Amino acid sequence: MSLPVGSRGVTGASPADPVNPMDAEDLRARVHKALADHLATQADVLDAVSDDLAPLMDSVGDLLTGGKRLRAAFCYWGWRGAGGEDCAGIVSVASALELFQAAALIHDDVMDGSDTRRGQPAVHRRFAALHRGNHWLGSSADFGVAGAILAGDLCLSWCDEMYAASGLPPESLAAGRSVFDLMRTELMCGQYLDMLEQVQATTTVERARHVILYKSAKYSVQQPLLLGGALAGAPDELLATYDRYGRALGEAFQLRDDVLGVFGDPTTTGKPAGDDLREGKRTVLVAVTLERCSPAEAAVVRRSLGDPHLDAAGVDRLREVMTDSGALGVVEGMISDLSAEAMAATAAVDAPAREVLEQLVAAATARSQ
Amino acid sequence: MSLPVGSRGVTGASPADPVNPMDAEDLRARVHKALADHLATQADVLDAVSDDLAPLMDSVGDLLTGGKRLRAAFCYWGWRGAGGEDCAGIVSVASALELFQAAALIHDDVMDGSDTRRGQPAVHRRFAALHRGNHWLGSSADFGVAGAILAGDLCLSWCDEMYAASGLPPESLAAGRSVFDLMRTELMCGQYLDMLEQVQATTTVERARHVILYKSAKYSVQQPLLLGGALAGAPDELLATYDRYGRALGEAFQLRDDVLGVFGDPTTTGKPAGDDLREGKRTVLVAVTLERCSPAEAAVVRRSLGDPHLDAAGVDRLREVMTDSGALGVVEGMISDLSAEAMAATAAVDAPAREVLEQLVAAATARSQ
Repeated sequence: MSLPVGSRGVTGASPADPVNPMDAEDLRARVHKALADHLATQADVLDAVSDDLAPLMDSVGDLLTGGKRLRAAFCYWGWRGAGGEDCAGIVSVASALELFQAAALIHDDVMDGSDTRRGQPAVHRRFAALHRGNHWLGSSADFGVAGAILAGDLCLSWCDEMYAASGLPPESLAAGRSVFDLMRTELMCGQYLDMLEQVQATTTVERARHVILYKSAKYSVQQPLLLGGALAGAPDELLATYDRYGRALGEAFQLRDDVLGVFGDPTTTGKPAGDDLREGKRTVLVAVTLERCSPAEAAVVRRSLGDPHLDAAGVDRLREVMTDSGALGVVEGMISDLSAEAMAATAAVDAPAREVLEQLVAAATARSQ
Repeated sequence: MSLPVGSRGVTGASPADPVNPMDAEDLRARVHKALADHLATQADVLDAVSDDLAPLMDSVGDLLTGGKRLRAAFCYWGWRGAGGEDCAGIVSVASALELFQAAALIHDDVMDGSDTRRGQPAVHRRFAALHRGNHWLGSSADFGVAGAILAGDLCLSWCDEMYAASGLPPESLAAGRSVFDLMRTELMCGQYLDMLEQVQATTTVERARHVILYKSAKYSVQQPLLLGGALAGAPDELLATYDRYGRALGEAFQLRDDVLGVFGDPTTTGKPAGDDLREGKRTVLVAVTLERCSPAEAAVVRRSLGDPHLDAAGVDRLREVMTDSGALGVVEGMISDLSAEAMAATAAVDAPAREVLEQLVAAATARSQ
């Protein structure tokens, strides 16, 4: 997936406010470069400590080469939509969010016991393999978890470091702080609630939506956008618009993720087919399915979810129940409704950010990875 | 242990620079209050998300009621020694270091598989017990690890939040940033190297001292002190003094920790006797022992270290080897020499900070917990 090109959108920016296609086209490349530069600086720090730290650095570097850079885009366009001028500082803050996302993924994969991420072995699996390959003492799995905890901790610290060293004025950074801080705390809360859902297995649609809000919607869309706005000193009215757009699109984004987690093509998602089912994720899709299917089908769903040995036939059976019960259709309908809600909210945003935010609706929801 | 009282030290502060006993006496209480206030604010954030998050908040709150507050003291006196006036801002930054320490302990206990911390169950054990008590689905141990990862992540984020919101002027915070950032990155590096030592089991005294430097000495003494100094705009000469003092005392601090880990009284250390031995920690004490003992004794040490079922008799046997080989004496000698080196460095610091830094040498090394 590439970030939307800033071509003239259907709403038509006024001639006085042309979208500079380079802004959007180049953003991914600029974020990539900002991250690479930051990691190069950190690599020097690690090298000065010990040669043995290369695997730690590489685990973070390899993970960060991938990713859709959606959070960075929302932050950047939240800034631009509030009248912020394009500058290196906002790209740096936007890139910091990718480090936050990396921390969340690395730790989340440990918590979920996931094997793969972005088409590569999950970070804890990398460290376990390193341990095994070197015939070190003790448990490879435990070493893997420890390595991943530390890699995630580094990303969390580096996220904050990049934010503070972005070069944006102190008063701007201070204005963004409340969003930046809340984002981090609320994500940890969401992750904990997500775990609770899995171990309690008492999902309702309402509860699954609450979890989505905190474990994904907020930090994926809403808070990056609000952060960009707050940094640029956006007025309350615009922040309220961002809030509406971000909440709706953030939820739609995660619902799409959940659908891809079951129906996605492993060659584009970078995760094995049915992984979410084996991990027992209690998604909205699962909750809607359980509400709509027959008691016999519900028993199959409950038995299969979280079974680490669920085979292809088992995955297919669950897909069938999700499709035949109409649950997949219901969730696709929710994605459409939420996307429309986000789209409607963009009307209050000035061009050129409006066009890009419209295009980001599609990028976040009509995707295959 | 209580922080040293700021009474007139042996070096004698000039009458113009009396130590205000309240400064040092009250510091622990002020740090405690700053942490309690910060956690109360965060509890409101968590409550707004879900009632289910109380265990997450409690795990952090309970851990933070304990602790020697040494890092906070070094930061505060680094500031005062550089001419910084007493104020709430420096207490807030000093308290942030206690949150960093909490994050490190929570994640370290997962990595080491430790059962107890500060006389209470380790955070991952708390969450495992919560899972077990509720008869939730899946593995209690896995739930415990996940809960502890998130609790540690929260502490890392809150540390940064407290630093940024301390109220110290932006230019002061910017000046402290390089120490604050390096401290976090280097600790993760030290933790990784510490793990490597345990799985490779090829400890030498030189390597063990290198690990100590990064996994403890720097972030326990040297960097808190340098941070306080940098925040107050200390001249390079004073920073060099802090560096010398901090490096020496930091190493002595960890050597004392290692000795207490084997010979300490569980009722004061809050950790079961011999826990470090069962966890297979490759300390300087272990490395010196292996250098000095007989081949037969070395075989016993190698076999016993890291044995999770090592009983009281096995612990006693290792203690005997460490004592009889003279290794304990050697390490005690190192602690004395390093303490003297730190003490000598204080001569370049003005009163009243000088007296407190002298007293902190004893607090960090002549302790029973």
